[in-house]
Amino acid sequence: MIDETHDPSAISWVESANDAETDFPLANLPFGIFRHDFEERPRVGIAIGDRVLDCLSAVQGGLFSGLDPAVRDAMASWTLNPLMALGRHDARDVRRVVHRLLRTDTPEGNRAHAVAADILASTDSIGMRVPAEIGDYTDFYASVFHATNVGSMFRPDNPLLPNYKWMPVGYHGRSSSIVASGTAVRRPRGQTVASPEGPPVVTPSSRMDYELEIGAYVARGNRQGDVIALSHAEEHLFGLCLLNDWSARDLQQWEYQPLGPFLAKNFATTVSPWVVTLDALEPFRVPAFARPAGDPAPLPYLDDAADRTRGGFGITLEVWLRTAAMRAAGLPAECLSRGSFASMYWTLAQMLTHHASGGCNLRPGDLMGSGTVSGPERGTRGCLLELAWRGQSPVTLSTGETRAFLHDGDEVTLRGRCERDGYRGIGFGPCSGELMPPLA
Amino acid sequence: MIDETHDPSAISWVESANDAETDFPLANLPFGIFRHDFEERPRVGIAIGDRVLDCLSAVQGGLFSGLDPAVRDAMASWTLNPLMALGRHDARDVRRVVHRLLRTDTPEGNRAHAVAADILASTDSIGMRVPAEIGDYTDFYASVFHATNVGSMFRPDNPLLPNYKWMPVGYHGRSSSIVASGTAVRRPRGQTVASPEGPPVVTPSSRMDYELEIGAYVARGNRQGDVIALSHAEEHLFGLCLLNDWSARDLQQWEYQPLGPFLAKNFATTVSPWVVTLDALEPFRVPAFARPAGDPAPLPYLDDAADRTRGGFGITLEVWLRTAAMRAAGLPAECLSRGSFASMYWTLAQMLTHHASGGCNLRPGDLMGSGTVSGPERGTRGCLLELAWRGQSPVTLSTGETRAFLHDGDEVTLRGRCERDGYRGIGFGPCSGELMPPLA
Repeated sequence: MIDETHDPSAISWVESANDAETDFPLANLPFGIFRHDFEERPRVGIAIGDRVLDCLSAVQGGLFSGLDPAVRDAMASWTLNPLMALGRHDARDVRRVVHRLLRTDTPEGNRAHAVAADILASTDSIGMRVPAEIGDYTDFYASVFHATNVGSMFRPDNPLLPNYKWMPVGYHGRSSSIVASGTAVRRPRGQTVASPEGPPVVTPSSRMDYELEIGAYVARGNRQGDVIALSHAEEHLFGLCLLNDWSARDLQQWEYQPLGPFLAKNFATTVSPWVVTLDALEPFRVPAFARPAGDPAPLPYLDDAADRTRGGFGITLEVWLRTAAMRAAGLPAECLSRGSFASMYWTLAQMLTHHASGGCNLRPGDLMGSGTVSGPERGTRGCLLELAWRGQSPVTLSTGETRAFLHDGDEVTLRGRCERDGYRGIGFGPCSGELMPPLA
Repeated sequence: MIDETHDPSAISWVESANDAETDFPLANLPFGIFRHDFEERPRVGIAIGDRVLDCLSAVQGGLFSGLDPAVRDAMASWTLNPLMALGRHDARDVRRVVHRLLRTDTPEGNRAHAVAADILASTDSIGMRVPAEIGDYTDFYASVFHATNVGSMFRPDNPLLPNYKWMPVGYHGRSSSIVASGTAVRRPRGQTVASPEGPPVVTPSSRMDYELEIGAYVARGNRQGDVIALSHAEEHLFGLCLLNDWSARDLQQWEYQPLGPFLAKNFATTVSPWVVTLDALEPFRVPAFARPAGDPAPLPYLDDAADRTRGGFGITLEVWLRTAAMRAAGLPAECLSRGSFASMYWTLAQMLTHHASGGCNLRPGDLMGSGTVSGPERGTRGCLLELAWRGQSPVTLSTGETRAFLHDGDEVTLRGRCERDGYRGIGFGPCSGELMPPLA
């Protein structure tokens, strides 16, 4: 689906959108939900350079008169759920219309430029929200490198369980505690043990970690009892964000058997507020992960030639850390790791199809996390547990500080970016959160 | 909180409410959400005998003029979330007002009786809904008998894990697939294995099971990062229902490690539509489960003298099965098991406090499942997996049919009832669902 919206020669009248470095050029046009300083009601926005297209104002100004009325209503809503529910086809229409609105060389662009002050918000005067009412949040575990690394720590004799290469392993997460980038996160207290058999004591977690993930929002859903064929799965995916699955490793290790992580994860999950559509990501396709010789072929419901051809997404993902000492010294954040979403064992389409394969109904706005994105090399590991190998090899920062796990005051920022020759690079914007001290 | 609403001598002008057998006498007054046949909009209802008090009509008729306007608005809503959000104190006010409205010997009762045709609906002409928008659903595992039985099947060398007696083990479930009693449930397909290492094949589940649970709706929630002290926990619980956590045991065994059950559970969960308030259940308190000698005392955050004194709830719980052959022969359902919620190792208050203990925010309308309610004797086991001991000892029915697991066409009905000398018995109404064949 590479069309005129990916034309690298297109110029926007929003000048910052033409910077080579911006995450939000004309070729991106991610959707989000923002709130003006002066009103309570949230609005749909589309990021363009360092500005935000205020879609309610654009609707009221008649700039979306070319869109279907149902789509216009969705653009005037206060969450992205209505637009997600309409499905990717309608979101593509919006994308094409907005692309023309924001260009210099179209009549629509000239008209919009003339009312720029009415329809553009500055990022200084707005606040970003979690962009959808997330009915259910599911977290997968789709990096075989992460699963193998973490498995070898938690179950040295049995790192990768027999089901791993047969299904995208996932579990249900907590919707209520999903927050938008910029929200501080409190270090949880919980039960921790000195030996595997206990007894536990209740302490603030001393093994706080981030997990670098991609989040995927569901577009149209499926009816309960029905399934979603892999060949149609991507039509049910609206777009992607960055996701930090904050984790308390000491709580996790004691509580996670037999029913999975619970309090170790449910205190907070941070998402980047802009949803980058699959249409924006289309030029950055990469081949699906090459399964090593000897690995089983996916079962038929998780395998089709088209999915292998469509492949994954070549998103470069980074984790940045800024400690309290760095802030005090005026030092910038420091990059801890850099990996690629192309290293995932399972595609998002496979995750979605597996999720619905037993008849579980997915709803517009549901969120799927990919699981920690880790590659084979040390510098590509997407959590501190792996980077510092369970605290055995702490990371040394430029300030001389070391980190086995996170300290209070640490600010973690995830970044994601796609580049390809012949195309404008696009990005996700930051996914940030600062770790706050525990309750007294 | 045993007050005049529990007066066993109170008589209702709704005559069916005075039957000794009804689940819904004046002393119960459970809340639900129903829809009239003639309109789309759901309404708040209160069950009374074989009728339903239509709360929107009662508000419009001025019968709730004694209530605070915010409470009246909540009673005119289309979900129970607003009433739940107000908290138990306001729900108690509603209970007292409705009790007086439905009695024979009060002026309010006389006034309401005169407009009975306007404010009472017959259960024939309405449909019951899931009573709240359930933001998050969490399932616990709080019967030590169930955990020990199932653990011994899935992990013969290690049935009860070391954390079990230290925390109410729980995990996040799926909200989207929660359905109200009466909704048919489709048998899922999924990956199953003949040997623990695989390889898997995709088949309809051949080990379909029910799980008899109590569900608890959250009233007021907590802010993210805050906790809920055990001493206040019950003020955050609105009321209880019956819950069938349908389970595909063959899918579960292959998928559940390391992150817990997923497709084995998320295809459907059935709830009984009436929410029985903790205030209605107050006379049926029983001492908290007596931990066997040698078991650890609960950690301080899960232990206070008042919680031990308040104890659990003496709800008698039954599972009834009606097969297709029974229906064809005009035979009634047959009781498979009868146990008591008093046998649970952890109280609902402990579950709620543990859930929020790391700062996870609970929201009004969130649902917690207790986990399968099983007692020590065979006849008290709350799922077929335990009753038929993993298929080794199939249950024989009066028709001569046997059940190791459920067959298509089997209708499972959960029932719950509280009785105590000197009080009117109350019940939950049925929680039913028929198992349908898998998709072709």
